[in-house]
Amino acid sequence: MRATLMYGAGDVRVEKVPDSVIKQPTDALVRVTAACICGSDLWPYASMKPEDGPARVGHEFLGVVEATGPEVTTVKPGDLVVAPFAISDNTCEFCREGLHTSCSNPQAGFWDGEAEEGGQAQAVRVPLADGTLVKLPVAADSALIPSLLTLSDVFGTGYHAAVVGGVNERTRVTVIGDGAVGLLAVLSAQRLGAEQIILMGRHPARTDLGRAFGATDVVSARGEEGVAAVRALTGGHGAHVVIEAVGTMPAYEQACGIVRPGGVISRVGAPQYEEAPVGFGSLFRHNIRLAGGPAPVRAYIEELMPGILDGTMEPGRVFDAVTDLDGVPAGYQDMADRRSLKVLVKP
Amino acid sequence: MRATLMYGAGDVRVEKVPDSVIKQPTDALVRVTAACICGSDLWPYASMKPEDGPARVGHEFLGVVEATGPEVTTVKPGDLVVAPFAISDNTCEFCREGLHTSCSNPQAGFWDGEAEEGGQAQAVRVPLADGTLVKLPVAADSALIPSLLTLSDVFGTGYHAAVVGGVNERTRVTVIGDGAVGLLAVLSAQRLGAEQIILMGRHPARTDLGRAFGATDVVSARGEEGVAAVRALTGGHGAHVVIEAVGTMPAYEQACGIVRPGGVISRVGAPQYEEAPVGFGSLFRHNIRLAGGPAPVRAYIEELMPGILDGTMEPGRVFDAVTDLDGVPAGYQDMADRRSLKVLVKP
Repeated sequence: MRATLMYGAGDVRVEKVPDSVIKQPTDALVRVTAACICGSDLWPYASMKPEDGPARVGHEFLGVVEATGPEVTTVKPGDLVVAPFAISDNTCEFCREGLHTSCSNPQAGFWDGEAEEGGQAQAVRVPLADGTLVKLPVAADSALIPSLLTLSDVFGTGYHAAVVGGVNERTRVTVIGDGAVGLLAVLSAQRLGAEQIILMGRHPARTDLGRAFGATDVVSARGEEGVAAVRALTGGHGAHVVIEAVGTMPAYEQACGIVRPGGVISRVGAPQYEEAPVGFGSLFRHNIRLAGGPAPVRAYIEELMPGILDGTMEPGRVFDAVTDLDGVPAGYQDMADRRSLKVLVKP
Repeated sequence: MRATLMYGAGDVRVEKVPDSVIKQPTDALVRVTAACICGSDLWPYASMKPEDGPARVGHEFLGVVEATGPEVTTVKPGDLVVAPFAISDNTCEFCREGLHTSCSNPQAGFWDGEAEEGGQAQAVRVPLADGTLVKLPVAADSALIPSLLTLSDVFGTGYHAAVVGGVNERTRVTVIGDGAVGLLAVLSAQRLGAEQIILMGRHPARTDLGRAFGATDVVSARGEEGVAAVRALTGGHGAHVVIEAVGTMPAYEQACGIVRPGGVISRVGAPQYEEAPVGFGSLFRHNIRLAGGPAPVRAYIEELMPGILDGTMEPGRVFDAVTDLDGVPAGYQDMADRRSLKVLVKP
């Protein structure tokens, strides 16, 4: 079979690899029919050292079950399924609390931590198939596939940001970042009824989509100027909930600048820093809370799917390019250069 | 009148100062009948530079109203009142949300920011008296005075830590720090029904009081050993809520080590650092939340007072020494040397 490998920064290749096969009785083998490139894939694409490669890549996919191990009971060959970016058993105490990204099963983890599997490929061995996979009630060629594919990561991640931020009808929300996660955080905040949704981004095609998803205001300025603009839009005090969907220190500092006293900074952009200001001068003085982490998207699939199936939500609009497996390396470069917002891959 | 002034690290003096007087129509003049020394007063006592002094000190007091400005309506001369450590109008949008420490009134702020007033004194001019002061339905010589005095800071601060941590009947709580705030966080967690309350502290007289307040376990070890002990006591996964009532980096790091995935670190020890680990290796990976800040104790006074008046809660047990104004300098040293847990001052 063929799969995508990252050899180092800027070096992505599609190559022949050993076929994925069932290894554990709880595995399923999935033929990938739709996958995508994630904004978080761009971090290693920008910085990966050759000695850390080659690594299989891709953590967002859906496809058709080809085979299952003898202990798998919830999916069967022929089923169309979506896989969250984290493998989980859906039964441990953390999964039962909806925190599937902290599943305590020894086989649990992130696709990015699996040495011999990756979503940007023709097939994937899925561990803990009963816990990880969710059956989709449509055909593999349904027009809803792009939207259903976002349940594997970006929609659930944007929704997680809004949920742990505590968005409700009384909250003013600011979303930092106009990537797919930021835009779907806008859609999520809109779904949760936010009073005001300010999107901070500087790519008009993206912020236009943000407006379509429910953004009430767009701020293209950054830094101090951006902070001042958001404060002006929020009556001077800042936003109740700031969703930080970038992951850089400037984005964190911007969040500190625009969050309201007593408010929440909800982070879902994987932080590219370990230390950050949290003391009296940043979070503590005004009881600012910090929340977020890798989204347990598995917990949200059943909740978000009906709105996709009935057409009231179209998160798949974040895809602005489609390619086959051969086009994946160019897709990375297009996303790195901001020519593409998000690339859908049909292996 | 006489008041306490800090001249620098280790240098506290009681001196004659100009009488406090009404200056604004919203002021009240309060004759202090009980005050105390706070654990947070020990930070400047340890490090204050002489060029920053002399400064009036003390932010916890209760006393009798002697006079009021013409706009004051809720308290009158002769009333016994308690003053929270933050001045607030109790009417702005933040006060209405219960975040009095972020009151937007220009006269609002902390006693420690008032140049010419302080609680460790014979009298205090209280700005925004209607918002700041709360009448106490007892006499100035009531046996309940020590407990009612804790409503000015330490009880409300411990309670805030538990509330913003989300303590309920299903939570395992760990409290780092056996000072007055830590002990009253234990009492607060007990009041909120916590399933388990682990107190980390190494002073037996204090941890014994912690047990009386509801601690189910005491861990005297610190660092890695302390982390391992708490994990063993919590089924291996750590505590749902960690209340950090110290404010140092080792205490923060300890909190990161013992908090459960999806849990909360609730800080009420004023942080003696600005930067701290918050990235993938500390908070982010397991969706750990960070909460806390200066407690809006004004918001909790009406809620906590009945339990004191009916004798079901005795937060005043944190006082283990009583002195007059002349004894304040020695009281600071006693607290710094851990000879006293908390010193009550009767000016």
